[in-house]
Amino acid sequence: MKKILSLVDDIYEDLELWYPKLRLEEEGWQVTVAAPESNRVFQGKHGYPCKANQDIADVETADYDALLVPGGFAPDKLRRDPNVLRIVQEFDAAKKPIAFICHAGWILISAGILKGRTATSTVGIKDDMINAGCEWLNEPLVIDGNLISSRTPIDLPVFGKAFVDAIKAQDA
Amino acid sequence: MKKILSLVDDIYEDLELWYPKLRLEEEGWQVTVAAPESNRVFQGKHGYPCKANQDIADVETADYDALLVPGGFAPDKLRRDPNVLRIVQEFDAAKKPIAFICHAGWILISAGILKGRTATSTVGIKDDMINAGCEWLNEPLVIDGNLISSRTPIDLPVFGKAFVDAIKAQDA
Repeated sequence: MKKILSLVDDIYEDLELWYPKLRLEEEGWQVTVAAPESNRVFQGKHGYPCKANQDIADVETADYDALLVPGGFAPDKLRRDPNVLRIVQEFDAAKKPIAFICHAGWILISAGILKGRTATSTVGIKDDMINAGCEWLNEPLVIDGNLISSRTPIDLPVFGKAFVDAIKAQDA
Repeated sequence: MKKILSLVDDIYEDLELWYPKLRLEEEGWQVTVAAPESNRVFQGKHGYPCKANQDIADVETADYDALLVPGGFAPDKLRRDPNVLRIVQEFDAAKKPIAFICHAGWILISAGILKGRTATSTVGIKDDMINAGCEWLNEPLVIDGNLISSRTPIDLPVFGKAFVDAIKAQDA
């Protein structure tokens, strides 16, 4: 069974966490939600609650097959946490799939892994993505090696499927 | 391409509409959201917005392959609308898949189609379901012919997959 780590904090984009999470669970996989504090409920941008069950500081990335980074304004806070950046760097170094959407790109920028990579994001952070050395495309889905990115919740159907396919491809 | 109708009104359960909607769109299908008024934004129980693009009064069920009825407290209002009951009755008479979850069972009760059928719902309306002549099971997913039912948002991964499978089976 595959194990996927998701990050969460207050003002996460509700569907950008929940749609991929439920979609991965449809495959029979386990999704762990890591936050600055576990056993606390975090509020989505629109108010949907999400209980975290893992402390970010204690994450061992070797325990997981892939990483989900939802958007909203949670990334603005999460990118300041050195453990978040370590987690992203370790998933990337291991070439494990990292799916990120909307404002989640901020976290990858601060992790310093976007230089020379191709990705997308909400147009709101397009300039930040480009200034980080990323080739930015205005497309619903961009896949560059282990990096899977989309723009907004409207793109979730293709985003979720691409993430599932990338995790399945690990066994091919 | 398959066309699926969903019902919405204020206080709908956010994920019970959005997870199946996005999951059906992943298949390349079109989901139309019908409400008492179209071109209005409805608020989920937790605050997620959903814009309707179809008036319930004008729905022609022959245009659709399947029906999604999300829960929350929207069903309490929707069950009072004779057009909602007509829509449910017509989908059922045509043996087209009807996926309903949580409090959505109230609408099927008022449509008078549950007598002798097997289904589930939130435990909150279990008595109403049984009093309507339904055999009620406490299971994550119950399928009885064209009726697909689940209990709560936790069941959404199996609920979504079963709904997709039922729609695909129409072509078998």
